[in-house]
Amino acid sequence: MSKKVTAIEWLRDESGYQLILLDQTLLPGRREFIVCRNVELVWEAIKMLRVRGAPAIGISAAYGVCLAALSAPSATSDGVAVAALRAADYLATSRPTAVNLFWALDRMRAVIGQHHSSDRDLIQKALIEEALRIHEEDRQMCHAIGSHGATLLADKSVIITHCNAGGLATAEYGTALSVIFTCQDLGKQVQVFADETRPLWQGSRLTAWELLERRIPTTVICDSMAAHVMQTKNIDAVIVGADRITARGDVANKIGTYGLAVAAKYHSVPFYVAAPSSTFDLTLQHGREIPIEQRDPAEVIAPYGHTLAPVGVDVYNPAFDVTPAELITALITERGIIQPVEGGNIRTILNANA
Amino acid sequence: MSKKVTAIEWLRDESGYQLILLDQTLLPGRREFIVCRNVELVWEAIKMLRVRGAPAIGISAAYGVCLAALSAPSATSDGVAVAALRAADYLATSRPTAVNLFWALDRMRAVIGQHHSSDRDLIQKALIEEALRIHEEDRQMCHAIGSHGATLLADKSVIITHCNAGGLATAEYGTALSVIFTCQDLGKQVQVFADETRPLWQGSRLTAWELLERRIPTTVICDSMAAHVMQTKNIDAVIVGADRITARGDVANKIGTYGLAVAAKYHSVPFYVAAPSSTFDLTLQHGREIPIEQRDPAEVIAPYGHTLAPVGVDVYNPAFDVTPAELITALITERGIIQPVEGGNIRTILNANA
Repeated sequence: MSKKVTAIEWLRDESGYQLILLDQTLLPGRREFIVCRNVELVWEAIKMLRVRGAPAIGISAAYGVCLAALSAPSATSDGVAVAALRAADYLATSRPTAVNLFWALDRMRAVIGQHHSSDRDLIQKALIEEALRIHEEDRQMCHAIGSHGATLLADKSVIITHCNAGGLATAEYGTALSVIFTCQDLGKQVQVFADETRPLWQGSRLTAWELLERRIPTTVICDSMAAHVMQTKNIDAVIVGADRITARGDVANKIGTYGLAVAAKYHSVPFYVAAPSSTFDLTLQHGREIPIEQRDPAEVIAPYGHTLAPVGVDVYNPAFDVTPAELITALITERGIIQPVEGGNIRTILNANA
Repeated sequence: MSKKVTAIEWLRDESGYQLILLDQTLLPGRREFIVCRNVELVWEAIKMLRVRGAPAIGISAAYGVCLAALSAPSATSDGVAVAALRAADYLATSRPTAVNLFWALDRMRAVIGQHHSSDRDLIQKALIEEALRIHEEDRQMCHAIGSHGATLLADKSVIITHCNAGGLATAEYGTALSVIFTCQDLGKQVQVFADETRPLWQGSRLTAWELLERRIPTTVICDSMAAHVMQTKNIDAVIVGADRITARGDVANKIGTYGLAVAAKYHSVPFYVAAPSSTFDLTLQHGREIPIEQRDPAEVIAPYGHTLAPVGVDVYNPAFDVTPAELITALITERGIIQPVEGGNIRTILNANA
């Protein structure tokens, strides 16, 4: 993301704490910010994808718990703890697939558990510190992913990416895009084809915008053009982010990722998934166990209010799909590169550098 | 297509002949017709996809030549012939990929050649007769394709289709959709997933509309969801149309077809291409020889005037891609089914039943 624009900011002014979120649904046309002073606004922002991307959702949810704790009407620490736990449960209902949301909320719950009998100010302070820590760790994680991932790309690489796994989806720099930005920092030239990413155009609206802000040569394509691009141009790699990764390495990510992985396999193009360790859900073995969020049909057939299908037609609008480990060349985490993608390697890398 | 709506109609009233085209860019919201009394309007309608689909383009172009011949200022047959030939050359510049356009124009040129020295009325009459013949042959061709294709699908088949290869793309009934309509006529239940088909949404706007008019269960999906649908649901076949087929069986069709074919191969789903013999271009061997139309970037990044990408980003907008014969289970033509898809079989079927 541009150094000038921050997707998530935690601020304090005379009226109290506030979470400032860049409304990503309005990009690239408008740069407007949502000022969240209560957890309901944070929930709405996550639900409506005003803030999106697995790591960014986790960070925002952590701050959402803080806002609930800060505005709890109770004067007791137990009252604050109850309000914060309720907020965590509430935020967990916003989006079901990205596991970073639940991971961040679990970290906040642990802090609540440690401090529920301390005084009101202490628990509030501890929650804010934990949210800031999650936020800061994410920044460091992004840069570590970029450093590991950049070793996989040669100078003058041509990359396809899908959806937005950039600074807007994280604290800064991103996951998949961090690899590209780090290459640039290291003096390697990279050219990118950005899938537009229907139905919500995160690729053309957000990824292309981030890449252009950094002057990286970028070409927007429709999702359906990616296979043709692999067939007719020299594509060196596909790099995407992830919303949840199972113990065996199956990856849930934005709908369209799976088709892209199948096409990459057919064309012998390396397919990389970049994601922090918080994206791994080792309680699940197979991708089919991951709950897939179903979204409003209007996103598909009535974008921006323009009706593009006959009245009464059925619509299927899964927000994610699952790419099996077999189609993934490597997982790029902040703790190292996992290759080949299989359970043993995943456990080794995640544990060794934890 | 609905029996109530005709995409292409050739009419005569007190002011002369006119070609009536349903403006398909406005569907399904509005049913408006363009009255073409000159070849320029026909060219514009083809260029802007008001009339689209390889067979429909051929039919419309044939009538366009008639309009030019009818309005030729010359009183001599040679003058009419020159005007008609110029119109044919002009119409050939409208869209480069679908070979049916050139095939129809060649038929019209042959009529001009036969009649250039006969009288003015005779050449005009002969041209109109040839255009009507092309139109009527297309009707019969669609039904023959449907009959052959229906033998490939069992009762309760679940199909994915891409773009629109229906009545709107042909004289009536379509090519790919004719197979589905004919199944329905034969009492077989068919359920369809219709790819929306970015960037111009022919799938959700046109195919879903045609299918719903015939009460065929239809679900609209984004193009990027097709692979996920193959992975998670029981898909029996993919059926699409074609814009040009080479001597070895490589198929140019709407962008996205190739990726769909790759995904079908990966999931062992039969991949069928339905097209009339006029779609074959036996002068070309390999698909890479087919000229691919590049279209306006605004179709991708500014649909309906809504800007969805940053200013100045590059856009790649090929209207077609090429699916190699190896990925195609069978070609369904009005002369029979070509399976396996290879040069010898293509020649045998096209010649044997010509």
